[in-house]
Amino acid sequence: MQMTDTICALATAVGGAIGIIRISGAQSLEILSCIFSKDLRQAEPNTIHYGHIGNIDEVLVSIFRSPHSYTGEDCVEISCHGSKYILNKVVDLLIEHGCRMAEPGEFTQRAFLNGKMDLSQAEAVADLIASTNKATHQIAMSQLRGNFSSELSNLRQQLLKLTSLLELELDFSDHEDLEFADRTELLLLTKEIDNRVSTLAHSFETGQALKNGIPVAIVGKTNVGKSTLLNRLLHEDRAIVSDIHGTTRDTIEDTIDIDGITFRFIDTAGLRQTDDHIENLGIERSMAAANRARIIIMMTEPGVPYPEIPIHDDQTLIRIENKTETFQAKYGVGIDQLRQQLLDAAPKTNESDIIITNARHYDALQRAHQALLQVVDGLQKQLSSDLIAEDLGQVINTLAEITGGQITSQETLNNIFKNFCIGK
Amino acid sequence: MQMTDTICALATAVGGAIGIIRISGAQSLEILSCIFSKDLRQAEPNTIHYGHIGNIDEVLVSIFRSPHSYTGEDCVEISCHGSKYILNKVVDLLIEHGCRMAEPGEFTQRAFLNGKMDLSQAEAVADLIASTNKATHQIAMSQLRGNFSSELSNLRQQLLKLTSLLELELDFSDHEDLEFADRTELLLLTKEIDNRVSTLAHSFETGQALKNGIPVAIVGKTNVGKSTLLNRLLHEDRAIVSDIHGTTRDTIEDTIDIDGITFRFIDTAGLRQTDDHIENLGIERSMAAANRARIIIMMTEPGVPYPEIPIHDDQTLIRIENKTETFQAKYGVGIDQLRQQLLDAAPKTNESDIIITNARHYDALQRAHQALLQVVDGLQKQLSSDLIAEDLGQVINTLAEITGGQITSQETLNNIFKNFCIGK
Repeated sequence: MQMTDTICALATAVGGAIGIIRISGAQSLEILSCIFSKDLRQAEPNTIHYGHIGNIDEVLVSIFRSPHSYTGEDCVEISCHGSKYILNKVVDLLIEHGCRMAEPGEFTQRAFLNGKMDLSQAEAVADLIASTNKATHQIAMSQLRGNFSSELSNLRQQLLKLTSLLELELDFSDHEDLEFADRTELLLLTKEIDNRVSTLAHSFETGQALKNGIPVAIVGKTNVGKSTLLNRLLHEDRAIVSDIHGTTRDTIEDTIDIDGITFRFIDTAGLRQTDDHIENLGIERSMAAANRARIIIMMTEPGVPYPEIPIHDDQTLIRIENKTETFQAKYGVGIDQLRQQLLDAAPKTNESDIIITNARHYDALQRAHQALLQVVDGLQKQLSSDLIAEDLGQVINTLAEITGGQITSQETLNNIFKNFCIGK
Repeated sequence: MQMTDTICALATAVGGAIGIIRISGAQSLEILSCIFSKDLRQAEPNTIHYGHIGNIDEVLVSIFRSPHSYTGEDCVEISCHGSKYILNKVVDLLIEHGCRMAEPGEFTQRAFLNGKMDLSQAEAVADLIASTNKATHQIAMSQLRGNFSSELSNLRQQLLKLTSLLELELDFSDHEDLEFADRTELLLLTKEIDNRVSTLAHSFETGQALKNGIPVAIVGKTNVGKSTLLNRLLHEDRAIVSDIHGTTRDTIEDTIDIDGITFRFIDTAGLRQTDDHIENLGIERSMAAANRARIIIMMTEPGVPYPEIPIHDDQTLIRIENKTETFQAKYGVGIDQLRQQLLDAAPKTNESDIIITNARHYDALQRAHQALLQVVDGLQKQLSSDLIAEDLGQVINTLAEITGGQITSQETLNNIFKNFCIGK
């Protein structure tokens, strides 16, 4: 992958009224001018030009100039009629005149390499495009806007402060009194940093739940109305989903969206089958499903005892007695209250919260946490300052991996960007 | 549908790296400025602006000013990250601030009503977006560029000339000598016009064949290799199709594309089944299929006679003896030559040819042709000039329906634009 190539790719999905082809690189305007009806090599930045590309299409062309573009390079966007034939033809022409097809995520990778955004922000671009509800959108947007980056920058400042305190200690290593006082302070500061790093790492679980849907299990003896309840919940969601803009909803089975939070009913197919099977088998399956759930809806009906299922500390239990005056799954009685209970049991997040959704970040934070524990251990064991400084350096480098502040290997970059869509 | 509303719609398909929302109408810049981070009410036309829409997205905004825009009104395009959640949110915000969701084709309808294009060009926009190969693309592009419109304009000039000659005749109606000379000239001119109108109407058949694929039937007795041949043709097409740009091919079963022309194998599923059925049934089906084909591939093998099937004058017959030295469907021997024979049998079109693909145009041309025959009849029967002028007026009005030059009813417009995609 040559950074000096001028690259092009279709940036929109095929099938709309219009389709956009993106070009980025030093030769963008040169190559465009070969195929466009006007010579735009001297065109002003951030301007739009109408013309035609041979007999292929009448198009609008948008001009962006380095460094004030998405990638930081000269960029062009060609807005064509959204025919696949036309879009392919225009890309063919661009390639014929010297463009290379962009790799997945290559535009964003160039934006990173040209200092337009750090690596965690680049990853947020992919998350933002993939966001399907309020929660995942909010997390991605916060990350794109650099909230996570600035938190990491704060941590880095504190780590550098720690390092300089250690160096101070080295300078005064003859004075045994000074050392002791410093070590207490260092220990406190390290634990404070580790606390913050652990909190970030821990948020990954919430991030995963919000991204994939919060796992919910409906458990209860057969015939108390579990599948009726699930169908009722799914049906209400399908009915209210405000999919008014002509787009197709990708129906992921057995998830519902309440107020921007996705809930995922785990193993419910299995649970539903239990209605036709012997009770023991049903309970067994329910137990397994319940074990993986964050929320357990335990369901019964008058005269039937609640099933006995162990509940973890981090699980929320919602008890429902079906077929009563206050709850009737079949007729939707009590469903609104249940939806509110589910929402109450969902992890609470504010716009200012930093939530990790990326396994690469989680891994780096975990390693930083381990290294910090070593720093704590070293401080407590009165190890020499230079040994501790080494562990601190590892923490700093590990956190820097997240934003890509240190030199990042091409392999790492490839791994990150290969999952992007082409054209971004 | 209020023409004074400011309308908005998603103009790209969902699922790409970026998504474009289009706004058109007098309030476009006013409404945009309510939701965008910058006040763009005084922005220069054809400029691009970077900013954000609340906490929803960071976007690029393109500004177009009346009358130099697609619709002829003030227009805005918002380029968002291609998340369905984001795109729906932005459309919601626009509607909240006074936009109305656009009806299908409403942007193009406004372009027509504001005199940016005539009706046949507006229809060409939809055809262009739907074009999937060279032939359909070329026809739509030619129509969009006004070739059909200017042909109609020429016809209109000739019809007006005819009318004025008739009026001249009325002025000199006392001079019987003059009348006779004029009528001969009028008759010639009328026949010339009718000839051109009939040619245009007749091109509809070719247009349909190019649009839907040229119907081909493979007929022959069982086991001579018909399905092997079809699979070989389909396979070669699938393999060479240059679908390199990350887009998904909409596989329409049993069509192949040779050099930009689509061939459609009719009833081939039925034909293929005949291999497993009794011979008589197979032949019967083949006969029916052959009757609807434009090209018939008649297939046999050494020692088996060709099937006896009636061939129309406008059908092309290609005879193949399979399992010989020069042709072996199984191993692809002779396939290239067959592909060339198919191509040779396809209707020939030049870029300058005007080909009708729209049933509305065909209908109008047929009616114009009928009215012209009445003019001819009237001239031959020495009817009075004012009666003939009435028929001529009908021809002029009927042809004007195509470009929408006359006042076009809202019902007609609705019928035309209802099949457009939203956002165009």
